[in-house]
Amino acid sequence: MKPGTLHIAGLGPGHESWITPEVTAALAQATDLVGYAPYLARLAPYPGQRLHASDNRVELDRARHALELAAQGHRVVVVSGGDPGIFAMAAAVFEAIETGNAEWRGLDITVCPGISAMQAAAARLGAPLGHDFCAISLSANLKPFPLVIKRLKAAAAADFVIALYNPASKARPDDIHEAFAALRAVKAGNTAVIFARAIGRPDEAVHITTLADADPARADMSTLVLIGSSETRLIARPGLAPFVYTPRGAGGL
Amino acid sequence: MKPGTLHIAGLGPGHESWITPEVTAALAQATDLVGYAPYLARLAPYPGQRLHASDNRVELDRARHALELAAQGHRVVVVSGGDPGIFAMAAAVFEAIETGNAEWRGLDITVCPGISAMQAAAARLGAPLGHDFCAISLSANLKPFPLVIKRLKAAAAADFVIALYNPASKARPDDIHEAFAALRAVKAGNTAVIFARAIGRPDEAVHITTLADADPARADMSTLVLIGSSETRLIARPGLAPFVYTPRGAGGL
Repeated sequence: MKPGTLHIAGLGPGHESWITPEVTAALAQATDLVGYAPYLARLAPYPGQRLHASDNRVELDRARHALELAAQGHRVVVVSGGDPGIFAMAAAVFEAIETGNAEWRGLDITVCPGISAMQAAAARLGAPLGHDFCAISLSANLKPFPLVIKRLKAAAAADFVIALYNPASKARPDDIHEAFAALRAVKAGNTAVIFARAIGRPDEAVHITTLADADPARADMSTLVLIGSSETRLIARPGLAPFVYTPRGAGGL
Repeated sequence: MKPGTLHIAGLGPGHESWITPEVTAALAQATDLVGYAPYLARLAPYPGQRLHASDNRVELDRARHALELAAQGHRVVVVSGGDPGIFAMAAAVFEAIETGNAEWRGLDITVCPGISAMQAAAARLGAPLGHDFCAISLSANLKPFPLVIKRLKAAAAADFVIALYNPASKARPDDIHEAFAALRAVKAGNTAVIFARAIGRPDEAVHITTLADADPARADMSTLVLIGSSETRLIARPGLAPFVYTPRGAGGL
Protein backbone atom coordinates (compact mmCIF):
# COMPACT_ATOMS: atom_id res chain seq x y z
CA MET A 1 0.00 0.00 0.00
CA LYS A 2 1.26 3.44 -0.88
CA PRO A 3 1.97 5.36 2.31
CA GLY A 4 -0.41 8.17 3.13
CA THR A 5 0.36 11.73 4.11
CA LEU A 6 -1.06 14.14 6.63
CA HIS A 7 -0.97 17.91 6.25
CA ILE A 8 -2.19 20.09 9.10
CA ALA A 9 -3.03 23.26 7.21
CA GLY A 10 -3.93 26.74 8.41
CA LEU A 11 -6.50 28.66 6.36
CA GLY A 12 -5.76 31.91 8.17
CA PRO A 13 -8.52 34.09 9.61
CA GLY A 14 -10.88 33.85 6.66
CA HIS A 15 -9.79 35.81 3.62
CA GLU A 16 -8.43 33.89 0.62
CA SER A 17 -5.60 36.37 0.09
CA TRP A 18 -4.13 35.18 3.39
CA ILE A 19 -3.96 31.48 2.46
CA THR A 20 -0.38 30.48 1.66
CA PRO A 21 0.53 28.65 -1.58
CA GLU A 22 1.74 25.73 0.56
CA VAL A 23 -1.78 25.30 1.95
CA THR A 24 -3.38 25.70 -1.48
CA ALA A 25 -1.08 23.00 -2.87
CA ALA A 26 -1.81 20.67 0.04
CA LEU A 27 -5.56 21.07 -0.52
CA ALA A 28 -5.17 20.40 -4.24
CA GLN A 29 -3.47 17.03 -3.77
CA ALA A 30 -5.67 15.76 -0.92
CA THR A 31 -7.99 12.78 -1.12
CA ASP A 32 -9.56 13.56 2.26
CA LEU A 33 -10.28 16.84 4.04
CA VAL A 34 -10.90 16.65 7.78
CA GLY A 35 -12.03 19.57 9.89
CA TYR A 36 -14.50 21.58 11.87
CA ALA A 37 -17.52 22.03 9.60
CA PRO A 38 -17.35 25.85 9.22
CA TYR A 39 -13.71 25.64 8.06
CA LEU A 40 -14.51 22.95 5.49
CA ALA A 41 -17.42 25.10 4.32
CA ARG A 42 -14.92 27.79 3.30
CA LEU A 43 -13.37 25.47 0.71
CA ALA A 44 -14.32 24.56 -2.84
CA PRO A 45 -13.40 20.85 -2.83
CA TYR A 46 -11.88 19.22 -5.88
CA PRO A 47 -13.86 16.43 -7.61
CA GLY A 48 -13.54 13.16 -5.73
CA GLN A 49 -12.30 14.63 -2.48
CA ARG A 50 -13.99 13.23 0.60
CA LEU A 51 -15.02 15.70 3.28
CA HIS A 52 -15.07 14.66 6.93
CA ALA A 53 -16.77 17.46 8.84
CA SER A 54 -16.94 17.37 12.59
CA ASP A 55 -18.34 19.43 15.41
CA ASN A 56 -16.38 21.79 17.62
CA ARG A 57 -14.76 20.46 20.83
CA VAL A 58 -13.98 17.05 19.36
CA GLU A 59 -10.45 17.95 18.27
CA LEU A 60 -8.86 14.78 19.56
CA ASP A 61 -11.41 12.50 17.85
CA ARG A 62 -10.97 14.48 14.65
CA ALA A 63 -7.19 14.16 14.91
CA ARG A 64 -7.40 10.39 15.43
CA HIS A 65 -9.73 10.02 12.47
CA ALA A 66 -7.31 11.96 10.26
CA LEU A 67 -4.37 9.82 11.44
CA GLU A 68 -6.31 6.60 10.74
CA LEU A 69 -7.10 7.78 7.22
CA ALA A 70 -3.45 8.67 6.59
CA ALA A 71 -2.34 5.31 7.98
CA GLN A 72 -4.70 3.67 5.49
CA GLY A 73 -2.80 5.38 2.67
CA HIS A 74 -4.93 8.46 2.03
CA ARG A 75 -3.59 11.94 1.42
CA VAL A 76 -5.27 13.75 4.29
CA VAL A 77 -5.45 17.46 5.07
CA VAL A 78 -6.61 18.52 8.52
CA VAL A 79 -8.09 21.95 7.91
CA SER A 80 -7.56 24.47 10.69
CA GLY A 81 -8.41 28.13 11.09
CA GLY A 82 -5.63 30.65 11.58
CA ASP A 83 -2.25 29.03 12.19
CA PRO A 84 -2.75 25.36 13.15
CA GLY A 85 0.14 25.73 15.62
CA ILE A 86 -1.48 28.57 17.59
CA PHE A 87 -4.51 27.49 19.65
CA ALA A 88 -5.67 25.28 16.80
CA MET A 89 -5.48 21.74 15.44
CA ALA A 90 -1.75 20.91 15.41
CA ALA A 91 -1.41 20.29 19.15
CA ALA A 92 -4.45 17.98 19.08
CA VAL A 93 -2.90 15.92 16.28
CA PHE A 94 0.39 15.50 18.12
CA GLU A 95 -1.46 14.65 21.33
CA ALA A 96 -3.30 11.95 19.37
CA ILE A 97 0.00 10.67 18.01
CA GLU A 98 1.64 10.56 21.43
CA THR A 99 -1.24 8.62 22.97
CA GLY A 100 -2.25 6.56 19.94
CA ASN A 101 -1.16 3.83 17.54
CA ALA A 102 2.65 3.56 17.45
CA GLU A 103 2.70 3.37 13.63
CA TRP A 104 1.31 6.92 13.46
CA ARG A 105 4.77 8.16 14.56
CA GLY A 106 6.18 7.04 11.22
CA LEU A 107 3.63 8.89 9.08
CA ASP A 108 4.65 11.65 6.69
CA ILE A 109 3.27 14.67 8.55
CA THR A 110 3.60 18.33 7.54
CA VAL A 111 2.35 21.33 9.47
CA CYS A 112 1.53 24.25 7.13
CA PRO A 113 1.56 27.50 9.09
CA GLY A 114 -1.02 30.21 8.51
CA ILE A 115 -1.87 33.76 9.50
CA SER A 116 -3.18 33.71 13.07
CA ALA A 117 -5.96 35.97 14.34
CA MET A 118 -3.59 38.24 16.29
CA GLN A 119 -1.58 38.91 13.14
CA ALA A 120 -4.66 39.77 11.12
CA ALA A 121 -5.91 42.09 13.87
CA ALA A 122 -2.50 43.72 14.20
CA ALA A 123 -2.31 44.30 10.44
CA ARG A 124 -5.68 46.06 10.42
CA LEU A 125 -4.74 48.31 13.34
CA GLY A 126 -1.14 49.25 12.57
CA ALA A 127 1.52 47.47 14.60
CA PRO A 128 0.21 46.77 18.12
CA LEU A 129 2.40 43.63 18.37
CA GLY A 130 5.47 45.67 17.47
CA HIS A 131 7.20 44.75 20.70
CA ASP A 132 7.32 41.83 23.18
CA PHE A 133 3.94 40.13 23.49
CA CYS A 134 2.10 37.11 24.88
CA ALA A 135 -0.67 35.01 23.40
CA ILE A 136 -3.02 33.54 25.98
CA SER A 137 -6.10 31.40 25.49
CA LEU A 138 -8.85 32.27 27.93
CA SER A 139 -10.50 28.91 27.41
CA ALA A 140 -10.66 26.95 30.64
CA ASN A 141 -11.87 23.75 28.95
CA LEU A 142 -8.44 22.19 29.21
CA LYS A 143 -6.62 24.12 31.93
CA PRO A 144 -7.55 25.49 35.33
CA PHE A 145 -8.81 29.07 35.18
CA PRO A 146 -6.47 30.18 38.01
CA LEU A 147 -3.58 29.40 35.64
CA VAL A 148 -5.09 31.76 33.07
CA ILE A 149 -5.32 34.49 35.69
CA LYS A 150 -1.76 33.82 36.89
CA ARG A 151 -0.44 34.20 33.34
CA LEU A 152 -2.48 37.33 32.69
CA LYS A 153 -1.11 38.95 35.84
CA ALA A 154 2.46 37.96 34.98
CA ALA A 155 2.09 39.30 31.45
CA ALA A 156 0.59 42.54 32.75
CA ALA A 157 3.26 43.02 35.42
CA ALA A 158 6.05 42.50 32.88
CA ASP A 159 4.31 44.95 30.50
CA PHE A 160 3.83 42.60 27.57
CA VAL A 161 1.26 43.34 24.90
CA ILE A 162 -1.36 40.59 25.36
CA ALA A 163 -3.32 38.81 22.65
CA LEU A 164 -6.30 37.08 24.22
CA TYR A 165 -7.67 34.12 22.24
CA ASN A 166 -11.04 32.43 22.92
CA PRO A 167 -12.17 35.29 25.17
CA ALA A 168 -15.83 34.25 25.27
CA SER A 169 -17.35 31.10 26.67
CA LYS A 170 -21.06 30.36 26.84
CA ALA A 171 -20.35 27.84 29.58
CA ARG A 172 -18.21 30.27 31.60
CA PRO A 173 -19.47 33.79 30.81
CA ASP A 174 -17.85 35.27 33.92
CA ASP A 175 -14.29 34.33 32.94
CA ILE A 176 -13.70 37.31 30.66
CA HIS A 177 -14.90 39.66 33.41
CA GLU A 178 -12.52 38.06 35.91
CA ALA A 179 -9.72 38.35 33.37
CA PHE A 180 -10.35 42.06 32.89
CA ALA A 181 -10.53 42.58 36.66
CA ALA A 182 -7.10 40.94 36.98
CA LEU A 183 -5.69 43.17 34.24
CA ARG A 184 -7.22 46.31 35.77
CA ALA A 185 -5.58 45.51 39.10
CA VAL A 186 -2.16 45.77 37.45
CA LYS A 187 -2.37 47.98 34.35
CA ALA A 188 -3.27 51.66 33.92
CA GLY A 189 -6.83 52.56 32.99
CA ASN A 190 -5.69 54.34 29.83
CA THR A 191 -4.07 51.16 28.42
CA ALA A 192 -5.20 50.59 24.84
CA VAL A 193 -7.67 47.71 24.42
CA ILE A 194 -8.92 46.47 21.06
CA PHE A 195 -11.75 44.09 20.27
CA ALA A 196 -11.00 42.70 16.80
CA ARG A 197 -13.90 40.66 15.48
CA ALA A 198 -13.92 38.33 12.44
CA ILE A 199 -10.95 40.06 10.80
CA GLY A 200 -10.69 39.05 7.15
CA ARG A 201 -14.34 38.09 6.93
CA PRO A 202 -17.23 40.17 5.51
CA ASP A 203 -18.50 41.12 8.97
CA GLU A 204 -15.13 42.22 10.33
CA ALA A 205 -15.21 44.93 12.99
CA VAL A 206 -12.63 46.68 15.14
CA HIS A 207 -13.40 48.50 18.39
CA ILE A 208 -10.65 50.58 20.01
CA THR A 209 -11.05 51.62 23.62
CA THR A 210 -9.19 51.73 26.95
CA LEU A 211 -8.91 49.24 29.77
CA ALA A 212 -10.99 51.54 31.98
CA ASP A 213 -13.80 51.85 29.44
CA ALA A 214 -13.74 48.37 27.88
CA ASP A 215 -16.87 46.25 28.22
CA PRO A 216 -15.58 42.66 28.38
CA ALA A 217 -19.00 41.40 27.26
CA ARG A 218 -18.23 42.82 23.81
CA ALA A 219 -15.98 39.80 23.16
CA ASP A 220 -17.75 36.93 21.39
CA MET A 221 -16.47 33.63 19.99
CA SER A 222 -15.11 35.40 16.88
CA THR A 223 -13.25 38.10 18.78
CA LEU A 224 -9.55 38.48 19.43
CA VAL A 225 -8.81 40.91 22.26
CA LEU A 226 -5.57 42.89 22.27
CA ILE A 227 -4.40 44.61 25.45
CA GLY A 228 -1.60 47.08 24.94
CA SER A 229 1.60 47.51 26.90
CA SER A 230 2.25 50.81 28.66
CA GLU A 231 3.93 51.95 25.43
CA THR A 232 1.11 51.05 23.02
CA ARG A 233 -0.33 54.24 21.57
CA LEU A 234 -2.81 55.66 19.07
CA ILE A 235 -1.98 57.89 16.11
CA ALA A 236 -4.97 60.13 15.44
CA ARG A 237 -6.06 60.55 11.81
CA PRO A 238 -8.56 63.16 10.65
CA GLY A 239 -11.68 61.40 9.41
CA LEU A 240 -10.14 57.94 9.75
CA ALA A 241 -9.75 55.35 12.47
CA PRO A 242 -6.54 55.85 14.42
CA PHE A 243 -3.50 53.67 13.90
CA VAL A 244 -2.50 51.61 16.94
CA TYR A 245 1.12 50.64 17.42
CA THR A 246 3.69 49.62 20.01
CA PRO A 247 7.11 51.22 19.49
CA ARG A 248 10.13 49.00 19.01
CA GLY A 249 11.86 50.67 21.90
CA ALA A 250 10.81 50.67 25.53
CA GLY A 251 12.11 52.82 28.29
CA GLY A 252 10.60 51.86 31.59
CA LEU A 253 10.92 48.93 33.92
CA MET B 1 -1.53 64.03 -8.45
CA LYS B 2 -2.85 60.52 -7.98
CA PRO B 3 -2.48 59.53 -4.35
CA GLY B 4 0.16 56.96 -3.55
CA THR B 5 -0.13 53.81 -1.52
CA LEU B 6 2.07 52.07 1.01
CA HIS B 7 2.02 48.34 1.67
CA ILE B 8 4.13 46.93 4.49
CA ALA B 9 4.49 43.36 3.33
CA GLY B 10 5.84 40.26 5.07
CA LEU B 11 7.75 37.78 2.91
CA GLY B 12 7.72 35.14 5.63
CA PRO B 13 10.87 33.31 6.70
CA GLY B 14 12.24 32.66 3.23
CA HIS B 15 10.36 30.04 1.27
CA GLU B 16 8.11 31.16 -1.57
CA SER B 17 5.36 28.75 -0.58
CA TRP B 18 4.87 30.81 2.59
CA ILE B 19 4.29 34.14 0.82
CA THR B 20 0.59 35.05 0.88
CA PRO B 21 -1.32 36.00 -2.29
CA GLU B 22 -1.94 39.43 -0.71
CA VAL B 23 1.80 40.08 -0.60
CA THR B 24 2.32 38.72 -4.12
CA ALA B 25 -0.39 41.06 -5.42
CA ALA B 26 1.09 44.04 -3.56
CA LEU B 27 4.50 43.36 -5.09
CA ALA B 28 3.00 43.04 -8.59
CA GLN B 29 1.37 46.50 -8.52
CA ALA B 30 4.28 48.35 -6.89
CA THR B 31 6.31 51.08 -8.52
CA ASP B 32 8.85 51.16 -5.68
CA LEU B 33 10.19 48.43 -3.41
CA VAL B 34 11.89 49.55 -0.21
CA GLY B 35 13.72 47.23 2.15
CA TYR B 36 16.74 45.71 3.76
CA ALA B 37 18.97 44.57 0.89
CA PRO B 38 18.85 40.79 1.59
CA TYR B 39 15.03 40.83 1.55
CA LEU B 40 14.92 42.74 -1.75
CA ALA B 41 17.43 40.23 -3.14
CA ARG B 42 14.84 37.48 -2.63
CA LEU B 43 12.49 39.11 -5.15
CA ALA B 44 12.30 39.02 -8.93
CA PRO B 45 11.28 42.64 -9.62
CA TYR B 46 8.85 43.47 -12.40
CA PRO B 47 10.11 45.64 -15.29
CA GLY B 48 10.24 49.29 -14.32
CA GLN B 49 10.11 48.77 -10.57
CA ARG B 50 12.58 50.85 -8.62
CA LEU B 51 14.45 49.12 -5.81
CA HIS B 52 15.54 51.08 -2.75
CA ALA B 53 17.83 48.81 -0.77
CA SER B 54 19.12 49.84 2.61
CA ASP B 55 21.37 48.55 5.32
CA ASN B 56 20.27 46.93 8.54
CA ARG B 57 19.60 49.10 11.62
CA VAL B 58 18.29 52.04 9.63
CA GLU B 59 14.65 51.02 9.91
CA LEU B 60 13.38 54.50 10.74
CA ASP B 61 15.22 56.15 7.82
CA ARG B 62 13.94 53.42 5.52
CA ALA B 63 10.39 53.95 6.80
CA ARG B 64 10.58 57.72 6.23
CA HIS B 65 11.90 57.22 2.72
CA ALA B 66 9.02 54.89 1.92
CA LEU B 67 6.48 57.35 3.31
CA GLU B 68 7.99 60.20 1.27
CA LEU B 69 7.74 58.11 -1.90
CA ALA B 70 4.12 57.23 -1.16
CA ALA B 71 3.33 60.88 -0.43
CA GLN B 72 4.77 61.74 -3.86
CA GLY B 73 2.20 59.42 -5.45
CA HIS B 74 4.16 56.21 -5.85
CA ARG B 75 2.85 52.73 -5.10
CA VAL B 76 5.38 51.67 -2.50
CA VAL B 77 5.93 48.29 -0.87
CA VAL B 78 8.10 48.12 2.23
CA VAL B 79 9.46 44.59 2.12
CA SER B 80 9.88 42.90 5.49
CA GLY B 81 10.97 39.45 6.54
CA GLY B 82 8.56 37.26 8.49
CA ASP B 83 5.45 39.11 9.64
CA PRO B 84 6.06 42.87 9.42
CA GLY B 85 4.06 43.30 12.64
CA ILE B 86 6.30 40.98 14.71
CA PHE B 87 9.75 42.43 15.43
CA ALA B 88 9.93 43.78 11.88
CA MET B 89 9.21 46.85 9.77
CA ALA B 90 5.61 47.80 10.62
CA ALA B 91 6.37 49.38 14.00
CA ALA B 92 9.16 51.46 12.42
CA VAL B 93 6.76 52.80 9.79
CA PHE B 94 4.16 53.81 12.36
CA GLU B 95 6.84 55.38 14.53
CA ALA B 96 7.90 57.41 11.49
CA ILE B 97 4.30 58.42 10.88
CA GLU B 98 3.76 59.49 14.49
CA THR B 99 6.87 61.65 14.53
CA GLY B 100 6.86 62.79 10.91
CA ASN B 101 4.99 64.83 8.32
CA ALA B 102 1.32 65.24 9.31
CA GLU B 103 0.14 64.45 5.77
CA TRP B 104 1.53 60.90 6.12
CA ARG B 105 -1.38 60.12 8.47
CA GLY B 106 -3.76 60.41 5.54
CA LEU B 107 -1.88 57.97 3.30
CA ASP B 108 -3.46 54.73 2.11
CA ILE B 109 -1.46 52.23 4.21
CA THR B 110 -1.94 48.45 4.32
CA VAL B 111 -0.05 46.01 6.51
CA CYS B 112 0.14 42.56 4.86
CA PRO B 113 0.83 39.92 7.52
CA GLY B 114 3.24 37.07 6.93
CA ILE B 115 4.48 33.86 8.49
CA SER B 116 6.78 34.79 11.38
CA ALA B 117 9.90 32.82 12.30
CA MET B 118 8.33 31.23 15.36
CA GLN B 119 5.47 29.85 13.26
CA ALA B 120 7.87 28.37 10.71
CA ALA B 121 9.96 26.81 13.47
CA ALA B 122 6.88 25.45 15.21
CA ALA B 123 5.60 23.92 11.97
CA ARG B 124 8.87 22.08 11.42
CA LEU B 125 8.93 20.71 14.96
CA GLY B 126 5.32 19.75 15.56
CA ALA B 127 3.31 22.10 17.76
CA PRO B 128 5.58 23.63 20.42
CA LEU B 129 3.44 26.82 20.48
CA GLY B 130 0.32 24.74 21.11
CA HIS B 131 -0.41 26.53 24.35
CA ASP B 132 0.10 29.99 25.90
CA PHE B 133 3.34 31.58 24.73
CA CYS B 134 5.39 34.78 24.70
CA ALA B 135 7.50 36.32 21.95
CA ILE B 136 10.47 38.31 23.25
CA SER B 137 13.17 40.12 21.32
CA LEU B 138 16.55 39.82 22.97
CA SER B 139 17.83 42.85 21.12
CA ALA B 140 18.87 45.58 23.53
CA ASN B 141 19.38 48.16 20.79
CA LEU B 142 16.14 49.88 21.66
CA LYS B 143 15.30 48.81 25.19
CA PRO B 144 17.24 48.32 28.42
CA PHE B 145 18.54 44.78 28.80
CA PRO B 146 17.21 44.52 32.38
CA LEU B 147 13.71 44.79 30.88
CA VAL B 148 14.48 41.79 28.67
CA ILE B 149 15.57 39.82 31.73
CA LYS B 150 12.53 40.91 33.71
CA ARG B 151 10.23 39.70 30.94
CA LEU B 152 12.09 36.41 30.55
CA LYS B 153 11.79 35.73 34.27
CA ALA B 154 8.09 36.61 34.29
CA ALA B 155 7.45 34.37 31.28
CA ALA B 156 9.41 31.53 32.87
CA ALA B 157 7.67 31.88 36.25
CA ALA B 158 4.23 31.81 34.60
CA ASP B 159 5.28 28.77 32.54
CA PHE B 160 4.76 30.26 29.09
CA VAL B 161 6.45 28.75 26.08
CA ILE B 162 8.98 31.41 25.00
CA ALA B 163 9.97 32.36 21.45
CA LEU B 164 13.22 34.31 21.57
CA TYR B 165 13.82 36.59 18.57
CA ASN B 166 17.15 38.26 17.77
CA PRO B 167 19.03 36.05 20.24
CA ALA B 168 22.50 36.93 18.98
CA SER B 169 24.23 40.27 18.97
CA LYS B 170 27.79 40.89 17.84
CA ALA B 171 27.84 44.06 19.91
CA ARG B 172 26.49 42.32 23.03
CA PRO B 173 27.58 38.66 22.87
CA ASP B 174 27.04 38.11 26.60
CA ASP B 175 23.32 38.91 26.50
CA ILE B 176 22.20 35.46 25.35
CA HIS B 177 24.26 33.86 28.13
CA GLU B 178 22.65 36.15 30.70
CA ALA B 179 19.25 35.32 29.28
CA PHE B 180 19.84 31.58 29.62
CA ALA B 181 21.16 32.07 33.17
CA ALA B 182 17.92 33.85 34.05
CA LEU B 183 15.86 31.05 32.55
CA ARG B 184 17.90 28.35 34.31
CA ALA B 185 17.31 30.06 37.64
CA VAL B 186 13.57 29.52 37.20
CA LYS B 187 12.93 26.58 34.88
CA ALA B 188 13.80 22.88 35.17
CA GLY B 189 16.95 21.61 33.49
CA ASN B 190 14.99 19.13 31.38
CA THR B 191 12.91 21.89 29.75
CA ALA B 192 12.89 21.47 25.97
CA VAL B 193 15.00 24.05 24.11
CA ILE B 194 15.15 24.32 20.33
CA PHE B 195 17.51 26.30 18.14
CA ALA B 196 15.72 26.77 14.81
CA ARG B 197 18.00 28.28 12.21
CA ALA B 198 17.04 29.74 8.80
CA ILE B 199 13.78 27.76 8.62
CA GLY B 200 12.41 27.78 5.08
CA ARG B 201 15.79 28.52 3.54
CA PRO B 202 18.20 26.03 1.94
CA ASP B 203 20.48 25.95 4.98
CA GLU B 204 17.71 25.37 7.51
CA ALA B 205 18.68 23.45 10.64
CA VAL B 206 16.93 22.42 13.84
CA HIS B 207 18.70 21.47 17.07
CA ILE B 208 16.64 20.01 19.91
CA THR B 209 18.14 19.94 23.39
CA THR B 210 17.36 20.77 27.02
CA LEU B 211 17.83 23.91 29.05
CA ALA B 212 20.57 22.17 31.06
CA ASP B 213 22.51 21.11 27.97
CA ALA B 214 21.86 24.06 25.65
CA ASP B 215 24.85 26.07 24.47
CA PRO B 216 23.53 29.62 24.07
CA ALA B 217 26.41 30.42 21.71
CA ARG B 218 24.70 28.18 19.14
CA ALA B 219 22.24 31.02 18.41
CA ASP B 220 23.29 33.24 15.52
CA MET B 221 21.51 36.11 13.76
CA SER B 222 19.37 33.67 11.76
CA THR B 223 18.25 31.61 14.76
CA LEU B 224 14.94 31.58 16.56
CA VAL B 225 15.18 30.00 20.02
CA LEU B 226 12.16 28.23 21.50
CA ILE B 227 12.07 27.43 25.21
CA GLY B 228 9.33 25.04 26.23
CA SER B 229 6.90 25.26 29.10
CA SER B 230 6.94 22.56 31.76
CA GLU B 231 4.41 20.68 29.58
CA THR B 232 6.34 20.82 26.31
CA ARG B 233 7.43 17.30 25.37
CA LEU B 234 9.09 15.19 22.70
CA ILE B 235 7.52 12.31 20.81
CA ALA B 236 10.27 9.86 19.89
CA ARG B 237 10.23 8.44 16.34
CA PRO B 238 12.40 5.53 15.21
CA GLY B 239 14.93 6.78 12.66
CA LEU B 240 13.41 10.26 12.54
CA ALA B 241 13.73 13.51 14.49
CA PRO B 242 11.28 13.65 17.37
CA PHE B 243 8.14 15.73 17.23
CA VAL B 244 8.00 18.55 19.79
CA TYR B 245 4.65 19.77 21.05
CA THR B 246 2.94 21.52 23.92
CA PRO B 247 -0.41 19.97 24.89
CA ARG B 248 -3.52 22.11 24.76
CA GLY B 249 -4.25 21.32 28.35
CA ALA B 250 -2.18 22.23 31.39
CA GLY B 251 -2.53 20.92 34.88
CA GLY B 252 -0.14 22.62 37.17
CA LEU B 253 0.13 26.07 38.64
